[in-house]
Amino acid sequence: MINSGGWHVNILTLFPDMFPGYLAQSLSGKALEKGLWSYDVVNIRDFAKDVHKSVDDTPYGGGAGMLMRPDIIEEATLSIGGNKQEDKKGCRRIYLSPRGKPLTQAMVQKLAKEPDITLLCGRYEGVDQRVLDSLGYEEISIGDYVLSGGEPAAMILMDACIRLLPGVLGNDETICEESFSNGLLEYPQYTRPAKWLNKSGDCLEVPTVLLSGNHENIRNWRLEQSQELTKRRRPDLWKKYCKRQESAENSKK
Amino acid sequence: MINSGGWHVNILTLFPDMFPGYLAQSLSGKALEKGLWSYDVVNIRDFAKDVHKSVDDTPYGGGAGMLMRPDIIEEATLSIGGNKQEDKKGCRRIYLSPRGKPLTQAMVQKLAKEPDITLLCGRYEGVDQRVLDSLGYEEISIGDYVLSGGEPAAMILMDACIRLLPGVLGNDETICEESFSNGLLEYPQYTRPAKWLNKSGDCLEVPTVLLSGNHENIRNWRLEQSQELTKRRRPDLWKKYCKRQESAENSKK
Repeated sequence: MINSGGWHVNILTLFPDMFPGYLAQSLSGKALEKGLWSYDVVNIRDFAKDVHKSVDDTPYGGGAGMLMRPDIIEEATLSIGGNKQEDKKGCRRIYLSPRGKPLTQAMVQKLAKEPDITLLCGRYEGVDQRVLDSLGYEEISIGDYVLSGGEPAAMILMDACIRLLPGVLGNDETICEESFSNGLLEYPQYTRPAKWLNKSGDCLEVPTVLLSGNHENIRNWRLEQSQELTKRRRPDLWKKYCKRQESAENSKK
Repeated sequence: MINSGGWHVNILTLFPDMFPGYLAQSLSGKALEKGLWSYDVVNIRDFAKDVHKSVDDTPYGGGAGMLMRPDIIEEATLSIGGNKQEDKKGCRRIYLSPRGKPLTQAMVQKLAKEPDITLLCGRYEGVDQRVLDSLGYEEISIGDYVLSGGEPAAMILMDACIRLLPGVLGNDETICEESFSNGLLEYPQYTRPAKWLNKSGDCLEVPTVLLSGNHENIRNWRLEQSQELTKRRRPDLWKKYCKRQESAENSKK
């Protein structure tokens, strides 16, 4: 696939057939067709050196599972020549791993602005630490759980970035108002019918303020709802939000 | 697809073709073939009531984007009749959303033990809050970023659960030693070659303790490495780990 000038991702994987997967559908699929992003898949197994095409070996010091060998991962990484990866400074190499720094929307926003990133998808017990260190791989985690491999995580990172690329979503306003953009979880939302008789026989109504047409009241109600939800469900985000509000007020003084 | 007795997932989506996607490959694919898990996809659009097959409408109170209607989501949910979902108490309904409770490995372990779960995949700006509340949908988030829809998140939740199902991974030890199982990030790992000459001409060696054969020293070194990494990279997990250690010591006294 040729880099057409849009956002470009190099994917190192043992499962090249997994890509583009669901990224070929819906929003990201249309963006792929339009050339707003592109990708190259490198099959790590192509760099195996023995007749069995093995890419892994047992861990030193004992333990279950197998690790991906440093020499093979290095060659696979440096093979990304079409983009002259090895000549570029600051071109980001990312290893997807539960040991990594947690992915946030702020990180996604930055990654979506990089012209070219490399994603290494681990399998088995992971990758020899020396090759991660010597090639400057950043470790990024999509969450505090363990997956079958790095491929599902790579697709999440790509999905989150692609929707932020210029021209992918029609409406920039949507991006501004969504969860995390102001450090709070999003307020609850309602649509038709205004009076909804559900199958249990309850008539459930939309909060009256939303039908009032008073934009200031609506804005205040939504902010309150966002604050209450964040406080209850995400004390960690709430703490950060309060600190930011405090320092913003202090700087006004 | 018939529930063969394994772990079963009902997926409510506007993109039925996205499933099973990459879950048909590798570990989860083999497990699917063996009947260790199964799934049903419900196309939400089948419950649309107008000729245009629309499932969404504008949000009350204004704002960008569209919301999924409560009446349509209710009918789609209650259509899961093969499992008599509506008769069961405590059968978990999950709505994947960045507003949700963050998914953790502990939650994954519990979800993998449920016989039957329902995953609602939102699109557009989300789902009317009334239907989430009245049907008892739990909101779960796979991380602090925004995706194109709930489908990629549903696949992550499924991938994490499937690898824990009995018979999927060969080696139970692997699961015990991995990240999060003891509240710490995993220690660095190394494999052959023990002395690796990389392409920059550096000879990178495996830490000598791992070659020593002294199992106690190796265990201690790995614990130290795990602790240091967690402290540096995840102060939030480190705090929780220290609290747990403290209360464990207090209970010994």
